[in-house]
Amino acid sequence: MTYTEKLLGLRKKMKEQQIDAYIIPSSDPHISEYLPDRFKCIAFASGFTGSAGTLVITEDFAGLWTDARYFVQANEQLKDSGFQLVKLKNQGKPEYIEWLSDSLTAGNKVAFDGKLASVSIAKHLIAELQPSKILIDGTVDLLDEIWTDRPGLPNNEAYLLDEKTVGAAISEKIAKVRDIMLKAGAKYHLISSLDDIAWLFNIRGNDVKCNPVVLSFALLSDKEVTLFIDQEKLQPHDQEKLKKAGVHIAAYDQLVDSLAKLPVGGSVLIDPKRTCYAVYTQIPQYENTIEGLNPTTRLKAIKNTTEAEHIRQTMVKDGVALTRFFKWLEENISQTTLTELSITDKLLQFRQQQEGFVNESFDTIAGYLAHGALPHYKATDQSNATLASKGLLLIDSGGQYRTGTTDITRVISLGELTDAERVDYTLVLKGMIEGSTTTYPKGSRGYQIDAITRKPLWDRLRNYGHGTGHGVGFFLNVHEGPHVFNTANIDIEIEEGMVTSIEPGLYREGRYGIRIENLVLSIADQETDFGEFMAFETLTLCYIDTQLVDKTLLDQKHIDWLNSYNNMVYERISPLLEVEEQQWLAEKTAII
Amino acid sequence: MTYTEKLLGLRKKMKEQQIDAYIIPSSDPHISEYLPDRFKCIAFASGFTGSAGTLVITEDFAGLWTDARYFVQANEQLKDSGFQLVKLKNQGKPEYIEWLSDSLTAGNKVAFDGKLASVSIAKHLIAELQPSKILIDGTVDLLDEIWTDRPGLPNNEAYLLDEKTVGAAISEKIAKVRDIMLKAGAKYHLISSLDDIAWLFNIRGNDVKCNPVVLSFALLSDKEVTLFIDQEKLQPHDQEKLKKAGVHIAAYDQLVDSLAKLPVGGSVLIDPKRTCYAVYTQIPQYENTIEGLNPTTRLKAIKNTTEAEHIRQTMVKDGVALTRFFKWLEENISQTTLTELSITDKLLQFRQQQEGFVNESFDTIAGYLAHGALPHYKATDQSNATLASKGLLLIDSGGQYRTGTTDITRVISLGELTDAERVDYTLVLKGMIEGSTTTYPKGSRGYQIDAITRKPLWDRLRNYGHGTGHGVGFFLNVHEGPHVFNTANIDIEIEEGMVTSIEPGLYREGRYGIRIENLVLSIADQETDFGEFMAFETLTLCYIDTQLVDKTLLDQKHIDWLNSYNNMVYERISPLLEVEEQQWLAEKTAII
Repeated sequence: MTYTEKLLGLRKKMKEQQIDAYIIPSSDPHISEYLPDRFKCIAFASGFTGSAGTLVITEDFAGLWTDARYFVQANEQLKDSGFQLVKLKNQGKPEYIEWLSDSLTAGNKVAFDGKLASVSIAKHLIAELQPSKILIDGTVDLLDEIWTDRPGLPNNEAYLLDEKTVGAAISEKIAKVRDIMLKAGAKYHLISSLDDIAWLFNIRGNDVKCNPVVLSFALLSDKEVTLFIDQEKLQPHDQEKLKKAGVHIAAYDQLVDSLAKLPVGGSVLIDPKRTCYAVYTQIPQYENTIEGLNPTTRLKAIKNTTEAEHIRQTMVKDGVALTRFFKWLEENISQTTLTELSITDKLLQFRQQQEGFVNESFDTIAGYLAHGALPHYKATDQSNATLASKGLLLIDSGGQYRTGTTDITRVISLGELTDAERVDYTLVLKGMIEGSTTTYPKGSRGYQIDAITRKPLWDRLRNYGHGTGHGVGFFLNVHEGPHVFNTANIDIEIEEGMVTSIEPGLYREGRYGIRIENLVLSIADQETDFGEFMAFETLTLCYIDTQLVDKTLLDQKHIDWLNSYNNMVYERISPLLEVEEQQWLAEKTAII
Repeated sequence: MTYTEKLLGLRKKMKEQQIDAYIIPSSDPHISEYLPDRFKCIAFASGFTGSAGTLVITEDFAGLWTDARYFVQANEQLKDSGFQLVKLKNQGKPEYIEWLSDSLTAGNKVAFDGKLASVSIAKHLIAELQPSKILIDGTVDLLDEIWTDRPGLPNNEAYLLDEKTVGAAISEKIAKVRDIMLKAGAKYHLISSLDDIAWLFNIRGNDVKCNPVVLSFALLSDKEVTLFIDQEKLQPHDQEKLKKAGVHIAAYDQLVDSLAKLPVGGSVLIDPKRTCYAVYTQIPQYENTIEGLNPTTRLKAIKNTTEAEHIRQTMVKDGVALTRFFKWLEENISQTTLTELSITDKLLQFRQQQEGFVNESFDTIAGYLAHGALPHYKATDQSNATLASKGLLLIDSGGQYRTGTTDITRVISLGELTDAERVDYTLVLKGMIEGSTTTYPKGSRGYQIDAITRKPLWDRLRNYGHGTGHGVGFFLNVHEGPHVFNTANIDIEIEEGMVTSIEPGLYREGRYGIRIENLVLSIADQETDFGEFMAFETLTLCYIDTQLVDKTLLDQKHIDWLNSYNNMVYERISPLLEVEEQQWLAEKTAII
């Protein structure tokens, strides 16, 4: 079936059901960022494979709303699909709702599948359209009927991590969450977000690519806690462990029944951004739920000392794999034909050699020359560039290890280097160093770290269009909240134990992209007359290429940091390398 | 009447009227920061004269809620008043409402004078207390009955500024405001805030100390505009001018009638933070008003080129006065007895010699030694310190000129200087330079400038407890919104034409305080591949003392900026000085 045939099929169904506009969001019943195949609805309907977007179909219009990261990709993928690209002005804002409000009139009907829309989005839609007497139906899955070979729900194995790995017992975590739930005035708490559930039950799975989570829901009361999961995914000993921790296990699809049985007026705490509308509306008197951040989200972000120590060890392994990869790349670039895709495979192989490695934490971005200027580039068979002995190569990659999640970006030069490239690289590096080395008062917010990181670029009238950093899970999602380092006015305190990326960049359209990214751990620094201060401990261990540095643009403190960082990388990684590899790394980390 | 007698009197009235808790906010019917004497209710009732605070009285408790700036002062002033200091955790947050919620029970009655509470505060109070069935009465002025010699409303002269001074006609401004009003879906717009009204009608007055405003309200519809003002304040020719601009003039106390006559359901735009509850509740169906920032607030903040040019000229005058003052101070410190109060008078005299000077823009802060560490210190007869030839003196002062408002802080050393003082001074200066010289993408927010300004202090584990900068009016209030440079997540864009202070500081309790403050104008910088950039033009013209600088803590760019700034000060100011003064200033501004 071609995309235009699918569109035709959808419009036929719309007509039959008197639907004037149909919305297909990019989500799943757990409001995930990375989706199981069953929920890749936008790709099925339009061919667009970006991680963020919304389709809206009316009788005479079909559009994909997505943001600047995906304009180039969307334009290509939507060719002949019948869908047009609508460029979002603000990333993440549901601007299609405004469009619907302008395009529809009283009596028109809008429909969507409530399993794919968060409570926030659905409520926003209702608030905007209902006053104009537009009907809204959140229970319509039109895709299911035309998607004949639609994949089922994933049913991969899941398993528990032991307490030695994660540093906290399930019962201990449940007690903390319950405490926050009760303080919020709630008697029940429903968790839909898979990484929150994974954290709470020390459980991991393979249901979503790159994210070691398992399809499930969790429902807590002041006395009970139930995990809704396909029981077959769990080995008997893991089921036993959960039961011992006081966790009831119920079938995944039993949630709806359990919600329906909740007492009317029994206040339920939900996170409207991490709960889907279909599940939400199963709660009796759902309009009286208590809305707030899932308590697990903040608790999960604050890594305990066991997790932090495991992450440090994981970084050594990841650093070894990366060192071998970059050495191999340097030695083979002029010997054989290498492409963006082939080096991506090779990098994966090096990581796979490391003990505890599970899989990639996201799709590797290997962007050569102009491809590097697309911050979310993913090489395809069509785009796959062949590397030559010149120009900049950007590699943003990460691994899921049983003991931590990594995410690192490095840029190297494959040959000659221009002064302009050197300047851009050095300014990005300077920003990364400024952000990583800053001390900041306890209570600071991500937007403050963001501004400090950008300053060296701003000073030279440069900037980058993405955030400076995101939270990273512990052997969990590579993007996690609640904190973030970006320009937005997000009022979340940076707390001790949070792991965040610092990844300034600089993109020259059609020429090259630069991004340098390390993960950092928020730690306590000194207390002075001026209050408690915090700092960052850099976790990532992989040499930063000094060949691209223009020393005249750095202050001595930046040069000192760079030398000391590279020296630390050598000290920690070299014991695990062969002699020849050690020599190679010693050269790369030589002081400048 | 002593304060305890007043408290006794208030409690008697409370008992008579069955009031369990009485709230006295620090405000007036225009939600002003600086109050006419008639509304200095907190000072009358408790003796506390700080600019921010709230009194709450119950049968067995009487407290003043205020923030850290005023702890020392409040402790002193509340002695034997019957009131206790309650320390606010968050400046500006109405934490007393939480206290009321905890202390009162169903059936209790809370009362306040709705003329002294903003709509926001009143609504917050109602939202927090009403669910607990606590009764709320916002129409009770208990003070009036016991305040026998309460001052009347001020009735000072008012006048219009001509278009040559302010660069825009009244009718032009009205058209802009009306346009925003209509776009917001409102048919009417009520303005209560005095500086917004002063801007809109190009009117100035003398009703509030330091703020050249006049007591008034304004009501706009799509066709009409009415200024509610005591007509006698205006000369006939100014009344004529207003009428020509299409402005109806009505008596100040006629507002209530006019509001009552508004059509039911005629949507009224109000700013809930700048409108008092008593006036608000006069609007028919007031619960259906449209709430938003007063359009005047943003328009007023963006200075036009005429205003900007007048401010530049005003800074020269202020700089001359300040230069003469600092020269006089240096020459007289060891000759005569000088005190914080006597030098404050002298500084005023130097400013008064300048053409167009009207009065101070706020109470001068002349803080010698430990007094400098109190950011909002105001010398009193009791505290007034005598200056000696040693230690640091902080002077934060400003003037209202017919052509602009100034606000400047400098710190000088009266004698020997310690290394620690030098380090602190230099770090504050470094922060001021970093903030003032940064370029920033169009669309940046104040919290980003704040972080950049604080960074040099954070680097040495120092910080300051106040914001980095506030908006400044054009011959209007020295504090104006909507923008602000501070750590809070306030989502207001910095726009071209905004005037803001940059004033980092550092306070060593019991020893000294440092703050260096200039006003800056936001201007367009270059547009590059990375978007449009903006920068600051420093407006303030007064030498920065280089004797206190530890050059080793500065980068060359900071030293270059300092030399270039001091040189600019000399170039602009010296033509207006006597030869001897020129020589003195030349020494002060010599390059380092």
